[in-house]
Amino acid sequence: MHNLQPLEIENKSFEIIKEEIDEDYFSLIPEELKPVIVRVIHATADFEFLYNIKFTENFFKKATEALKNGCTILTDVKMIEAGISKNYCEKFGIKVKCYMSSEDVIEYAKKNKTTRAKAALLLHGKEADNGIIAIGNAPTALFQAIEMIKNGEIKPNAIIGVPVGFVGAEESKNELTKLNNVEYITSLGRKGGTPVAVAIINALLKIIS
Amino acid sequence: MHNLQPLEIENKSFEIIKEEIDEDYFSLIPEELKPVIVRVIHATADFEFLYNIKFTENFFKKATEALKNGCTILTDVKMIEAGISKNYCEKFGIKVKCYMSSEDVIEYAKKNKTTRAKAALLLHGKEADNGIIAIGNAPTALFQAIEMIKNGEIKPNAIIGVPVGFVGAEESKNELTKLNNVEYITSLGRKGGTPVAVAIINALLKIIS
Repeated sequence: MHNLQPLEIENKSFEIIKEEIDEDYFSLIPEELKPVIVRVIHATADFEFLYNIKFTENFFKKATEALKNGCTILTDVKMIEAGISKNYCEKFGIKVKCYMSSEDVIEYAKKNKTTRAKAALLLHGKEADNGIIAIGNAPTALFQAIEMIKNGEIKPNAIIGVPVGFVGAEESKNELTKLNNVEYITSLGRKGGTPVAVAIINALLKIIS
Repeated sequence: MHNLQPLEIENKSFEIIKEEIDEDYFSLIPEELKPVIVRVIHATADFEFLYNIKFTENFFKKATEALKNGCTILTDVKMIEAGISKNYCEKFGIKVKCYMSSEDVIEYAKKNKTTRAKAALLLHGKEADNGIIAIGNAPTALFQAIEMIKNGEIKPNAIIGVPVGFVGAEESKNELTKLNNVEYITSLGRKGGTPVAVAIINALLKIIS
């Protein structure tokens, strides 16, 4: 156990997940998204995500298309930025951006008494046009993204909307599922989080590599 | 909902958690650690952590002592580094270190066919003497830390050992609970992860601020 190599650990984990997973439900997941679901469960040790995760029909196609084109991934928090595989990003020329700590965002949030996550979307959301917006923490950021997409102000190829928590997270994800002009993946209910967002992105990157 | 401010969201979340939490069990948690448990549940939306989290009697005392002294926090992955509150760290002169991507670590891991997380502990574990080791992802790092502490090679004030996953995570955390020469906090079973480690650290930092 102590001397297992990273790939051995990962493969053994995936074997265990496939043994324990609810096969009746898992078999309904489209083939190309199965590795994504498995990686989320791997990252959280939580089989609930098998049932929570919802996605649009073309999410996989549009998200991988953007990644292959070396798109921008705009994240709400630095934990997602830190978790995305740098090797894969370099390979495709993908740029991962997070503006939570940018001067302009801090100033805007203070002045307008809002969250920095929301301000970051407002000021920099357009950078994810043809790219991907990944939100793992802040419902306010997801609400903002939804509003801007609804109004046609920003045009990401796909949204990964998986904020976690007790206030706003569930509501923001429900709103996301009402959009019909963007492809998305989300985790319904309270659960989600940065490891979920990171697992989805790294799974997609691995598939196309 | 859309225009809630960060502190309002946090306070409302904590209210909901306190309403829904298993009060019989929660009342057994020492007073000073209650905010830590609440913050972990807040970060994961997962009440299982109320039952999973175990700690030694003096964990709180030794961990907060180290933080107040501006200690080093050695993390296994960059996601923890990214999640720890920078404002609090500056206030106390705390240094957060992660060596996952250091040249020496990458080289050592390749040469010795081991994980970079384990190599980082081997090569840099001593930097956390009188400080805190925080492991949210890699069981191999936790096993390595345990071995070095057992042998008296490193002397952290406290360990936050919450790796997540299906292979090694549970076993490494069980090993941690057998140590009697270090204070620790852990999450038994498969669950854990970087948000759990970050929530524990940020909760401690908030308490002493």
